Amino acid sequence: MAEGKEKKYIVRFEPSGLKTEVPASTILLEAAHKVGIYLSSICGGDGYCGKCKVIIDEGQFKSRPTTLLTQDEIQENVVLACQTKVLSNMTITVPKSHALQAGQILMDADAHRFSQLAGEMQIGMFEFDPLVRKLAVEMSAPTIRDNTADHERLYLGIREQIDAPIMQTGFRILQKLPRVFREANYKVMATIGWRGGTTEVIEVEPDRTDAVLQKGRKTGLKTNFAVAVDLGTTTVVAHLIDLTNATTIDTEATYNSQINFGEDYIRRIIYAEENNAFDEMQNRIVHDVNNLIVTLAARQRIDLQDITAIICAGNTAMVHFLLNLDPRQIRREPYVASAGFVPPIRAAEAGIQINKRGLLYCLPSVAAYVGSDIVAGVLTTRIYTKKGISLFIDIGTNGEVVLGNRDWLVCASSSAGPAFEGSGVKHGMRAASGAIEKLAIQPDGSIEYSTIGDTKPAGICGSGLLDTLAELFTNNIIDRTGRFKANKDERLTEGDEGWQFQLVPAGDGYHEIAITQADINNLIRSKAGVFAAIQVLMDSTQTKPEDLDAIYLAGGFGNFLNTRQAVTVGMLPDISLEKIQFVGNTAIAGAKTVLLSRKALETTEQIAKSMTYFDLMSHPTYMDEFIKASFIPHTDLSLFPSVKLATEKV
Amino acid sequence: MAEGKEKKYIVRFEPSGLKTEVPASTILLEAAHKVGIYLSSICGGDGYCGKCKVIIDEGQFKSRPTTLLTQDEIQENVVLACQTKVLSNMTITVPKSHALQAGQILMDADAHRFSQLAGEMQIGMFEFDPLVRKLAVEMSAPTIRDNTADHERLYLGIREQIDAPIMQTGFRILQKLPRVFREANYKVMATIGWRGGTTEVIEVEPDRTDAVLQKGRKTGLKTNFAVAVDLGTTTVVAHLIDLTNATTIDTEATYNSQINFGEDYIRRIIYAEENNAFDEMQNRIVHDVNNLIVTLAARQRIDLQDITAIICAGNTAMVHFLLNLDPRQIRREPYVASAGFVPPIRAAEAGIQINKRGLLYCLPSVAAYVGSDIVAGVLTTRIYTKKGISLFIDIGTNGEVVLGNRDWLVCASSSAGPAFEGSGVKHGMRAASGAIEKLAIQPDGSIEYSTIGDTKPAGICGSGLLDTLAELFTNNIIDRTGRFKANKDERLTEGDEGWQFQLVPAGDGYHEIAITQADINNLIRSKAGVFAAIQVLMDSTQTKPEDLDAIYLAGGFGNFLNTRQAVTVGMLPDISLEKIQFVGNTAIAGAKTVLLSRKALETTEQIAKSMTYFDLMSHPTYMDEFIKASFIPHTDLSLFPSVKLATEKV
Repeated sequence: MAEGKEKKYIVRFEPSGLKTEVPASTILLEAAHKVGIYLSSICGGDGYCGKCKVIIDEGQFKSRPTTLLTQDEIQENVVLACQTKVLSNMTITVPKSHALQAGQILMDADAHRFSQLAGEMQIGMFEFDPLVRKLAVEMSAPTIRDNTADHERLYLGIREQIDAPIMQTGFRILQKLPRVFREANYKVMATIGWRGGTTEVIEVEPDRTDAVLQKGRKTGLKTNFAVAVDLGTTTVVAHLIDLTNATTIDTEATYNSQINFGEDYIRRIIYAEENNAFDEMQNRIVHDVNNLIVTLAARQRIDLQDITAIICAGNTAMVHFLLNLDPRQIRREPYVASAGFVPPIRAAEAGIQINKRGLLYCLPSVAAYVGSDIVAGVLTTRIYTKKGISLFIDIGTNGEVVLGNRDWLVCASSSAGPAFEGSGVKHGMRAASGAIEKLAIQPDGSIEYSTIGDTKPAGICGSGLLDTLAELFTNNIIDRTGRFKANKDERLTEGDEGWQFQLVPAGDGYHEIAITQADINNLIRSKAGVFAAIQVLMDSTQTKPEDLDAIYLAGGFGNFLNTRQAVTVGMLPDISLEKIQFVGNTAIAGAKTVLLSRKALETTEQIAKSMTYFDLMSHPTYMDEFIKASFIPHTDLSLFPSVKLATEKV
Repeated sequence: MAEGKEKKYIVRFEPSGLKTEVPASTILLEAAHKVGIYLSSICGGDGYCGKCKVIIDEGQFKSRPTTLLTQDEIQENVVLACQTKVLSNMTITVPKSHALQAGQILMDADAHRFSQLAGEMQIGMFEFDPLVRKLAVEMSAPTIRDNTADHERLYLGIREQIDAPIMQTGFRILQKLPRVFREANYKVMATIGWRGGTTEVIEVEPDRTDAVLQKGRKTGLKTNFAVAVDLGTTTVVAHLIDLTNATTIDTEATYNSQINFGEDYIRRIIYAEENNAFDEMQNRIVHDVNNLIVTLAARQRIDLQDITAIICAGNTAMVHFLLNLDPRQIRREPYVASAGFVPPIRAAEAGIQINKRGLLYCLPSVAAYVGSDIVAGVLTTRIYTKKGISLFIDIGTNGEVVLGNRDWLVCASSSAGPAFEGSGVKHGMRAASGAIEKLAIQPDGSIEYSTIGDTKPAGICGSGLLDTLAELFTNNIIDRTGRFKANKDERLTEGDEGWQFQLVPAGDGYHEIAITQADINNLIRSKAGVFAAIQVLMDSTQTKPEDLDAIYLAGGFGNFLNTRQAVTVGMLPDISLEKIQFVGNTAIAGAKTVLLSRKALETTEQIAKSMTYFDLMSHPTYMDEFIKASFIPHTDLSLFPSVKLATEKV
């Protein structure tokens, strides 16, 4: 082996063909990142999640021993990229399902579904009064009798049109006012933004509304756009909004390229702390957001200078990463954010590429584990206005739950775990092309399923996993604790990792897809976490299932969930199914609503302030509730009368 | 002559011994500026003020012909520096009276007088509530039941102590909050500043009040200073204020080093336009202000980081220069400022060296020619609160006049001209060491005078010139038009420049000091400008001299003025002398009052808004009034009953 500290080697990644030169002994995972290939990784490179498998086609390497590879895999030269050093020129194949493309905008079925779903603004709910707007301001020219200074003349002109008791103007704008006023003959286009109780003059240009035939770029027009962003831990979604008429004109999504630092944000905080990688963490998410903005702007032939605002909703940690606020206390008792109400800043301060004086808004959050995406959900579902009690659930990596009505709101975040996002599940995968999204066991015992994109199955995503759990239970293959029943089904086999049930047999170009006992245990833990959170909030407020007027399911998962099955496994309270409603991406819907109305922004602030947060980890009954919910559907069957009937039928 | 375009020569200036290397044909004025010698110059280098005279001791040069040098001067190798090119290595002597030291703090008698005079704050007039303050904020540590984010926790802590409905926090502060809070165990020192309707958190540090014995620089203490600045066209005065107890702890003054670009600000605007020297103009004044700040801080052993605010009052043009706001419209009809109400900015944005997040405030101005120094005067004299009518006069390069009471205020700026500052007067000089500041003609016809610093007379400053004018008139040496009467006084001689009257004979190491017919004409024009402005305001408001409760005289000139003589020559209305009051440097007094009270800032804004500005140049009766006032004391003697009596006595 040609090991040498000063040597450099070429590593080539297939099927993309991307190459990079790295020093000898470089870790393969780093080499992959260097060319922009972001391998799936939950553990952040610690070598215990087993997600970063790649195949060595050619070349010398050294891998640390691991129990996460099967004999077959070892024989096929499969390695964990995070545990493998480069010792020569190499060629690597990245399995399709493991690579997250970055540096290019990923528009697979999944991302498209996330971007297009719902996320509609609550038009009519609030007065149209966008956070940033352009005003054509026509002033009279000064005279000897009216020699008001330019700055004050501008304020008078703006105040003729809008209510702006406290105004601010940046120094650079002030410096150019005299020139612009005289060049424009006192007809200017002022861009003004709402900034924490004050109205800021962001830009002043000659009003060129009448000069439509002018050459070159058209500045000084009323044209005005903004971007609303759902800062998801896994997927980042952006909507391009025309601020002049409150319409969504395009949408785009990409994977969050922080993902190779850990699949959940706690992992990412730990990674950033251990590697002093806070800047890098910000760079990644800012890069993703900029990619989305540039893609949207290019496709719609919009100048970035005409995008004057960006508004973000997301969990508290993602907002901290975006702004490079210190996130370290988020993961430490008593779990405190740097800021829940983040003041608007200039987008350029965070590196966001819109108009260089454009503003970046973040919706307010409630606590370290109940972020602004959840506040946006409360806004969008209007549960804060209703007399009846509603339950709002957003199941992702964590499962956030809000319960309440117009008089009170309580919330909590369960440690649901990412099982329903495919993590910690042998054949789990994201809701991407090839994922089994629906699955049913037929009366004859055969299994029917459908995949995203109608392709060959590559794995199982969240809704498919829920179906699988429910179907295994209702078909008597697992018992109420989730354990496989001893029966004679030949699909139930014992392998290296214990018992597993085959869902798709290998052959015909299909590889086997199965669910293991460990997978089932993980899924039950996840659903138990959500249900226990719901129970704690309901008990604390003396709310009974029959008191619930509605359950709103938000997030990507929610949209494809089979509600019947969700009740069957005991994830949702057993209420009339017609009361359960999918509400789609309420994070982006709420962000857009706020973008278009100052009043909506104030409302989210009131909502965030009024929500009482329950810390479940320290709550006296949560662990009991979690244990009781760790059965299918629950230890207390009286809570699930409809499920009881179904199992009795079998 | 060794003239060559590529050649470089050394120019040495005596008595300072400063040297510089310049290309052949460099203008001597520029060479002087290059080493930091600022020669007096009214015309900005156009060659017609004759102020930049220097003596060539050695070397080759080329001068453009001028009528501003006498034969004697030409024989003594005196040249105008602005009209002379360097053609070899040279040695130059700069006459002491013409050089303005820069790069070092000038503390001559004049500057000291300006800095120490009056300028006292109106303690008790407004509640003590400084624009920037430090608050010791002690918060409870977060717990599971109180996990309010750090940013919101800080706001709650601040709002327990002060009323701050709208707060703002800079991004950089937000980013460091979690670290500071935990390092400080939730006891922090917050620096907060009032910023146009909002309260900004400028700095947050661990509160080190109890850790007095710590090593190194003490941050996080309540120690808090500010600087108040009178941005004069000629002299810049700074007071160092302890913001914790509202005391002035030191003062300093320097000449405005913009002066070699023109002695009045209109000349400087023209110079900046013609030479695109706006940045240079800003650099000069910022340099002067920084010099003052550094001197004060060094003398008082104060860290610049502990100076958290600077507040400025000055004429509108000087404020524009300081902030590099566009001043070009100030000199063009209809005379419009970029901003009259300049929003607070970060001092560092203008290059001012205090705490890097400290704030720079400018008092509001009324119009292009009535600046914030005048508003400060109205605040300080309290004429806006009084039932009776007052007249406020600030005589400098221009003469600003305010008339009014608690119900109304009118103001104007006369084109008084700089004669009383010694410009355009043969032996005129600033109120510096050696200047004749008092002069009287004795009954025996002999002349008695006193000089600043009791040194040999070098020239005559404003108060001396006023005395001279009045004494020549009351002693029948000039008539009511200012013309020398044909009489037999041997001190009246006709020279190259027409008739002149000798005040100090040459000999005994004294050089002759005389006043010429042209000087007298200039002085009369100046006093006529002031009086005409007063008349226009009084006529417009139907105010008669007997309606005046008080005349307040502000500015450096005012303090040494003989009021009797000022009435005698017809510069001030003929009212009871005890109603005439010197109020000193009201610009700096007003700036300090505002610095120490938010309410005072609001009051100046109300004053500035309520003052009605009269543009004299376009006023129908101003020219008539000016002509009528161009007599001693006036064409209408009934306006000056006391003067009439005096002349009748002679």
